[in-house]
Amino acid sequence: MDKTGILERIRHLSTRKTEKMYLNDFLLTWNKTHDELQAVFDVAEILRGMRDNNISPRVFDSGLGISIFRDNSTRTRFSFASACNMLGLEVQDLDEEKSQIAHGETVRETANMVSFMADIIGIRDDMYLGAGHTYMKEVSQSVSQGYQEGVLSQRPTLVNLQCDIDHPTQSMSDALHLINTFGGLENLRGKKIAMTWAYSPSYGKPLSVPQGVIGLMTRFGMDVSFAYPKGYNVMSEVEEIARKNCRTGGGSFTQVDSMAEAFKDADIVYPKSWAPYKVMEQRTQLLKKGDQKGLLKLEASCLKNNKKFVKWECTEKLMETTREGNALYMHCLPADITGVSCKQGEVAASVFDRYRVPQYVQASYKPYVIAAMMFLSRFRNPADQLMAIMDRDQPRVGA
Amino acid sequence: MDKTGILERIRHLSTRKTEKMYLNDFLLTWNKTHDELQAVFDVAEILRGMRDNNISPRVFDSGLGISIFRDNSTRTRFSFASACNMLGLEVQDLDEEKSQIAHGETVRETANMVSFMADIIGIRDDMYLGAGHTYMKEVSQSVSQGYQEGVLSQRPTLVNLQCDIDHPTQSMSDALHLINTFGGLENLRGKKIAMTWAYSPSYGKPLSVPQGVIGLMTRFGMDVSFAYPKGYNVMSEVEEIARKNCRTGGGSFTQVDSMAEAFKDADIVYPKSWAPYKVMEQRTQLLKKGDQKGLLKLEASCLKNNKKFVKWECTEKLMETTREGNALYMHCLPADITGVSCKQGEVAASVFDRYRVPQYVQASYKPYVIAAMMFLSRFRNPADQLMAIMDRDQPRVGA
Amino acid sequence: MDKTGILERIRHLSTRKTEKMYLNDFLLTWNKTHDELQAVFDVAEILRGMRDNNISPRVFDSGLGISIFRDNSTRTRFSFASACNMLGLEVQDLDEEKSQIAHGETVRETANMVSFMADIIGIRDDMYLGAGHTYMKEVSQSVSQGYQEGVLSQRPTLVNLQCDIDHPTQSMSDALHLINTFGGLENLRGKKIAMTWAYSPSYGKPLSVPQGVIGLMTRFGMDVSFAYPKGYNVMSEVEEIARKNCRTGGGSFTQVDSMAEAFKDADIVYPKSWAPYKVMEQRTQLLKKGDQKGLLKLEASCLKNNKKFVKWECTEKLMETTREGNALYMHCLPADITGVSCKQGEVAASVFDRYRVPQYVQASYKPYVIAAMMFLSRFRNPADQLMAIMDRDQPRVGA
Repeated sequence: MDKTGILERIRHLSTRKTEKMYLNDFLLTWNKTHDELQAVFDVAEILRGMRDNNISPRVFDSGLGISIFRDNSTRTRFSFASACNMLGLEVQDLDEEKSQIAHGETVRETANMVSFMADIIGIRDDMYLGAGHTYMKEVSQSVSQGYQEGVLSQRPTLVNLQCDIDHPTQSMSDALHLINTFGGLENLRGKKIAMTWAYSPSYGKPLSVPQGVIGLMTRFGMDVSFAYPKGYNVMSEVEEIARKNCRTGGGSFTQVDSMAEAFKDADIVYPKSWAPYKVMEQRTQLLKKGDQKGLLKLEASCLKNNKKFVKWECTEKLMETTREGNALYMHCLPADITGVSCKQGEVAASVFDRYRVPQYVQASYKPYVIAAMMFLSRFRNPADQLMAIMDRDQPRVGA
Repeated sequence: MDKTGILERIRHLSTRKTEKMYLNDFLLTWNKTHDELQAVFDVAEILRGMRDNNISPRVFDSGLGISIFRDNSTRTRFSFASACNMLGLEVQDLDEEKSQIAHGETVRETANMVSFMADIIGIRDDMYLGAGHTYMKEVSQSVSQGYQEGVLSQRPTLVNLQCDIDHPTQSMSDALHLINTFGGLENLRGKKIAMTWAYSPSYGKPLSVPQGVIGLMTRFGMDVSFAYPKGYNVMSEVEEIARKNCRTGGGSFTQVDSMAEAFKDADIVYPKSWAPYKVMEQRTQLLKKGDQKGLLKLEASCLKNNKKFVKWECTEKLMETTREGNALYMHCLPADITGVSCKQGEVAASVFDRYRVPQYVQASYKPYVIAAMMFLSRFRNPADQLMAIMDRDQPRVGA
Repeated sequence: MDKTGILERIRHLSTRKTEKMYLNDFLLTWNKTHDELQAVFDVAEILRGMRDNNISPRVFDSGLGISIFRDNSTRTRFSFASACNMLGLEVQDLDEEKSQIAHGETVRETANMVSFMADIIGIRDDMYLGAGHTYMKEVSQSVSQGYQEGVLSQRPTLVNLQCDIDHPTQSMSDALHLINTFGGLENLRGKKIAMTWAYSPSYGKPLSVPQGVIGLMTRFGMDVSFAYPKGYNVMSEVEEIARKNCRTGGGSFTQVDSMAEAFKDADIVYPKSWAPYKVMEQRTQLLKKGDQKGLLKLEASCLKNNKKFVKWECTEKLMETTREGNALYMHCLPADITGVSCKQGEVAASVFDRYRVPQYVQASYKPYVIAAMMFLSRFRNPADQLMAIMDRDQPRVGA
């Protein structure tokens, strides 16, 4: 995108209703309006265009972006750090092991204590069903209250970097990848996407990716075909949201029983392993109790059950059944690749490898999507700010 | 504070003698003059005012703020990071586990090796009696020498983020909280503050908070009532300093034997647990020897002894005996709250909760106090620098 | 260096051929031309001069410098962080324990996933013979490919912060120290440097320092005398490079059997322990197999063998045999100092102490050398950029 393209996109953005995003969190895509989602795509693309034109979008001369990762993470950690750095925030990691949180502090107290200079709080908490989203709401309420009570000089806004329910920075990056692959959001209408379970030799993978995808893609008029083996249900509330989305968005949401059915004539396929909702519920209980023996037993029984569905693999043969044998293969990465990262996994090596570059490109949107979410939560008039950045024309690299 | 207020405060600051703070450390409040302490309050309030007016006080285009934490920390870590970030320094943590310090490096060598680009070194070392302050002096001398010898292109200055003797960033934040609560430093004169021990189900809490408070508040003409159970003495050197302060400052320092006596007609109460000096001494010896068995034995005997004083709790009934039943309750946080964070603790839940917001506000001063200490150690003419910041009028947020 | 000196040095730099450094890595000094090495010295000295004149050399308004440390590190970590900070990059550490690398990700995938906003990648990987350099090449190829494929919007460049073969940031800092000590690169011609093994009570010290020194100093027309006990060979490929360097550079490379012979009339001595190449090879195999028992056995046998050469110590007596008894003593630090950091070590305490300041100065060049390597890899016309920095005249410290 050249500078003219950037300016045009800023004009588009200026027509969107984004007022409610200001000083608000980004926790679940389905709580955002269509205009708000499009504003995220706009800002992400504008920021990407600025980078290509060596224009620095730094809008914070100082300020902290706090990250709370309750699970290991490389790509999300780097995406968040990249987004913060791009806008001028410094990441400060709340490492719960190093902190005094274990010593009985309440969430409210800690949330306030770390937020005196915080503009953004990014949280990843996807381990426990029923916990991640709840924790984020608690942090959000704590800092809102702190701001109202005059404790905080600004109200930090939250970005959900993955919870038990949704993974909005992933699904929005996925959507942006589709938009750019198919030439525009309007071209997604009527496209068939197969979100399917796939076999993995590990267990306990979170539900937030499939849930995020069915909860978002159904809003763009897409035909979402959702396939998983018997028992591998996701949260029924999210399936309900997907169905509801179709009523207003004009797409469809169909639950089918095999990869074959889902892949048939699909324009896009997204085969990925996850744990059954019921297993995640049991696991949460066992983790809370610290029942190591129970956890090992659950793992063994799940892996055994998984093995029944070892044929749920994205093979070349299945790919041939997609639209013109040419569907776009997607994965949030890292994937379990048969014969590469494991003996038998989610996807055949040749399929994965053919789509390696598009997958990397898919991942490359995440820093911009996160930065866009941040940007829209910090500025009442984002288009004006972006115009000011263009006028300023500060190079990112070079004296 | 609006811009006019900020400018006025800068004019106040310009009348203070701060030359000796330049390229000097902030280790103990009692080694600073009255003018120097007031300069810290001035700069802290000016920086806070700048933030409220979206003026960026960044004075470093690059540079490192090194942090050395020899104990777990959330709030101090974030306060230091916030202070550094506000002024433009990047925090670089000297993690002694990741470093080669364990491999026999001397303090002098390491201090120099990490300081080539360091403007500030912040150290928290409060675990061992007789060690923290000594270590800071050693680091300070090392980098002074390195600067004189031409090894370092600048002399990094130290901020004591808590040692075995004093906790100046805490006590100065506490004082600023009192100044703002009572409407000015001059209004603290004659106010009674009860610094008292309180029961906690844990042991080994550092002495630096009570020591810091009695060593500082006695300088402002306050009547400091210091209460603890028999045997829970703090360092006698610091009690001596408190007494000496009164002679010049016009306040009083009284050691009493019960919370009741200390709380009587107090304007401010600061009930907080600590370990007896003698116990900390024994503990230091055992820690040095790595005597795990001895440590467990000491802990058990201390907890047992603590239990005798379980009635040392800040209750509603005690609060009623304070000035108009309305004393300001203070705590450095986190507190042991009866029925909330423990079965029986330092403070009744209803008292803590009524003073929750003032306590959070109390904590909110720390980043500014730390930044002020840094600022005054880096600029020979701090008022001129602050005026230049005002003239420049660079927004903190916004293009 | 004053501003006139800086400008003159920039003019010098503008005559060097540095085009091939642009978007290229710095992995091995012997793959760089003489002009390129001199350009590194130029830029390092210019940056140092700028700091002395309070001129900020920030050329990145945002961007990440990724660090990957596969071994503990204090000084290299801080040097890298300092270099990044000086130029405006934020360090983001790829902590392999916290990441999902252990979950079977390929190097290519991870390298791309962390590099969307990365300008620089600094890697230290010196533990395994045959691994470090290979890993760096793999990362380099991965991000080059990612850039060509349109995945990355920029091609991050690598700086070798120590590998199994070379330690270019160390040897280049060492060389800059010599240049400044002896008054110019041309004055190194004909100077005798003794790079010798020395006894240490530990084992498994990497070969990269002696290899880096013999591979670099032979290029400047120096007479390199290389001494080690029988069996303590380094990689023969690097010895071959040293010999080859002499043919073009006019110096000499002599392998001798004793410290006495090496030290005789030396202008510079660099006594330092390392493990025999063969031992490192065995160790690599054992580490790969995770053979703890084998490792302990190897360590015991090596330490026993080391003990035979306990007389390889840099003593006052040996120092007396150097040119006018006055050779420059060098060490990459930390050193094993007899009677200080160990009972018997590489160097006598009095020798070490007499050269403490020069050694600290030697270490002080590293941040500038790293920054120079980064700078030259990011700008096609480094001299123009540096002139723009001078013209801009932005203070590093001060509003």
